[in-house]
Order: sequence, then structure tokens, then C-alpha cells
Amino acid sequence: MGAHGHPYAPAGLELPGFVPLKLSQAQIVAPYLGTTLFVVLAVWFLSGRCRRLSKVDRLLMCWWAFTGLTHILIEGTFVFRPDFFQRENPDYFDEVCKIPEIWKEFSKGDSRYAARDTATVTVEGITTVLEGPASLLAVYAIGSRKSYSHILQFAVCLGQLYGCLVYFITAYLDGFNFWASPFYYWAYFIGANGWWVLIPTLIAIRSWKKICLAIGAEKMKTK
Amino acid sequence: MGAHGHPYAPAGLELPGFVPLKLSQAQIVAPYLGTTLFVVLAVWFLSGRCRRLSKVDRLLMCWWAFTGLTHILIEGTFVFRPDFFQRENPDYFDEVCKIPEIWKEFSKGDSRYAARDTATVTVEGITTVLEGPASLLAVYAIGSRKSYSHILQFAVCLGQLYGCLVYFITAYLDGFNFWASPFYYWAYFIGANGWWVLIPTLIAIRSWKKICLAIGAEKMKTK
Repeated sequence: MGAHGHPYAPAGLELPGFVPLKLSQAQIVAPYLGTTLFVVLAVWFLSGRCRRLSKVDRLLMCWWAFTGLTHILIEGTFVFRPDFFQRENPDYFDEVCKIPEIWKEFSKGDSRYAARDTATVTVEGITTVLEGPASLLAVYAIGSRKSYSHILQFAVCLGQLYGCLVYFITAYLDGFNFWASPFYYWAYFIGANGWWVLIPTLIAIRSWKKICLAIGAEKMKTK
Repeated sequence: MGAHGHPYAPAGLELPGFVPLKLSQAQIVAPYLGTTLFVVLAVWFLSGRCRRLSKVDRLLMCWWAFTGLTHILIEGTFVFRPDFFQRENPDYFDEVCKIPEIWKEFSKGDSRYAARDTATVTVEGITTVLEGPASLLAVYAIGSRKSYSHILQFAVCLGQLYGCLVYFITAYLDGFNFWASPFYYWAYFIGANGWWVLIPTLIAIRSWKKICLAIGAEKMKTK
């Protein structure tokens, strides 16, 4: 804990009324990973009942369910509970879900969350409100083989990638000194966010190719 | 000119070394609109020589040429010349193109440009480096009827719309007081930016529909 009563960097950051974390890193990360595993397995088995879905489609449904719920529940809590690091008496939601604790822990990798940096709140707001529901729609679209499935997935991936770009570039321009130690830089700032660069890139490339193939086939037909 | 030696809002904004505008609004806007008209007419007539292009395709080529050049030349000057409002002795580029004067004028509608607000610089940087060249590629893709034409246009539109969202939401969160008067609010902040909400929305909807039709047709074939 630094002189300013919080464990974040830069040490001079003012966080009046900061209430320290109650849980350890393991107590925060384990339930998140456990819930993720449960969601992924549930979607995997349920999607097995849909006819004519490839294994890739079913894996994509797992990803979209996981990322959609993360956007809405975890990131939504950050966006719509501005006082998460000041709550002395957590309510029922906080007690059960512990999501505010996730953000107190994650702020060790990027204190802009605790400080409610404008760009960070903006990107998280767009992610929660637009990309969260759109991700869940993608689960349905893939499962029921809708014709908008690929363009929807492409759109959400592009949103996620644009969000990551804004997130990383603003961190760079604002001083690039928001992590408590190199461990938190690599584990949280780069490691946790990196999945939302890698996976949307792969899905966007796949959707781009599928769409070009379909358009190309249509062109051949009308020639 | 306010007490702090500049015409921008809020009046307390510190801009050390600010060199006042030399040109009037008309002297700045007229060459921009004139150049725009020239680019649009040139692309319109040149695209008339491409076979099998609809009028909508040719109009889209005009838009992509205009918006691509605006992103690269106008917005690129803002991004890569951080000292545009301090230049006492403009160089040849400034003298001929007057682009720094555009930004001094536009800052009356949003002083975050003069103040180099992080989110604004970030959005403009992404727009310049990614969306600018991609817009020019869209001119070529439409003209030569590439199969990636629709998905490329959709991608650039989504980038422009995400950029506008970040731009407007950060303005709101940071106090919404960056215009010198209601005139500049409506003419520059809303009016000038509004085109990059309206037109990308229309193009994105069109590309979405075209892509869904092509994917739907492919599905019917493989049934």
C-alpha cells in the first residue's frame, strides 16, 4: 500500500475514500476462470444439439458467450458503478459477485480504471452497451445459421480491436506508467487485454474471407 | 481574443506560445470546399470511364476519395504537427496548404484540438493512419469491382463511427464546454462531424445488406 493509501501507480494518484481490496488475487481470479469454464462448457454441450454446426462454429459460440457476458457483467459493473473503489459497505450484488473487487485488482495493471480516466470509461462504455449485446446476438446468429452471422461477428471484432487501439494508444500518450509493477504490466495490461486483440483479429480475418468468397461466387453467377 | 491570448473555450485554457489565426473563416473554408469539389468532380468523371459501375458506385468513389484525402492530409497534419498553433514562421507547406489554419479555426468548435487532448489525438491518429489509406483503397476496390469492396467499406465506416462515438462521448465526460459559442458548436462540433456519422451509417447499412444477400444466396445454393 503506497503513501496515498492505495496500491496503484503512479504513487501520487489521488483516490479519496479508497477502500482496500478484501480478497487475494487467487480469490478473485479463480471464480472468474471457474465461471468462464462453466459458460464455455455449457455453450459447447448445448450447441452440440444444433444441427449442421462445425466444431469451429461451436467454439466461436463459446467465445461470443464468454466475451458477451464479460462485456455486460464485468465491464458493465465498472462503467455504471463509478464509486466501486470507495464502497465501504458492499451491497448484496457486490457481496455475491465480487465484481468491484475484480476492478480493484485489475487497476494494479492499469490505474486508469480506479482513476476513471475518460478514454478508458468511454471505451468500456461502448464495449458494454454495444459490443456486449451484439456478442450474445452472435451466439444466436451462429447457432441458427443466420445470413448476417459473419458480418455481425466482423463488426463486433472491429469494435473490440478499435477499443483496444484507443486503450493502448491513450495509455502511451498519457505517460505509460499505470501499472504497479512489471508483473501487473505483463499479466493484466498486456496479458489480459491481449486476448481481445488476438481472438478478434483471427475471427475478423475468417469472416472477411468467408464474405469475400460469397461475394465472389455471386459475381461469377451474374457474369 | 480571450484573456489567455486565444479565442477558444474554456477561457482558462492555457496555450503557451499561441500564434493567432491569420486567415478569416471564409479564407479557410472556401479553399477546402473548392478542393473538395475539384476532387469529387475529378473522381466522378474518371469513374465514368470504368465499365459496369452504377451511379451509386461512382458517388461512393467520390466520397471515399474525399474522405480519404481529408483523413490523410487534413487530419494527418493535425496528428503529426503537434505545434501547429505555435508556429510563428510557417514553412513552405504551411504557407501553401494553410492546413494548420484549418485546425486553429476548427478549434473554435472544439478546443481539445488546440489543447491536444489525448482521446482526440488518438482517434485522429487511428483515422489518419488506418482509415485514410483504407478509404483510398475503397476507391480502387469499387472501381475494379473487387470482391472485398463491400467488407472494406463496411470496415472503414465502422472505424469512422467508432471514432465519432469516442470523440463525442469523451467530450461529454470531460465537461462539454469546448466551443467558443453556440454557432461554433452547431457549425463545427455537430455540423462538420455530423457528416462522418450520417454517411458512414448509410454506407455501412448498404454494405451489410449486400453482404447478407450474397451469403444468403450462397446458403440457398449449398442446401
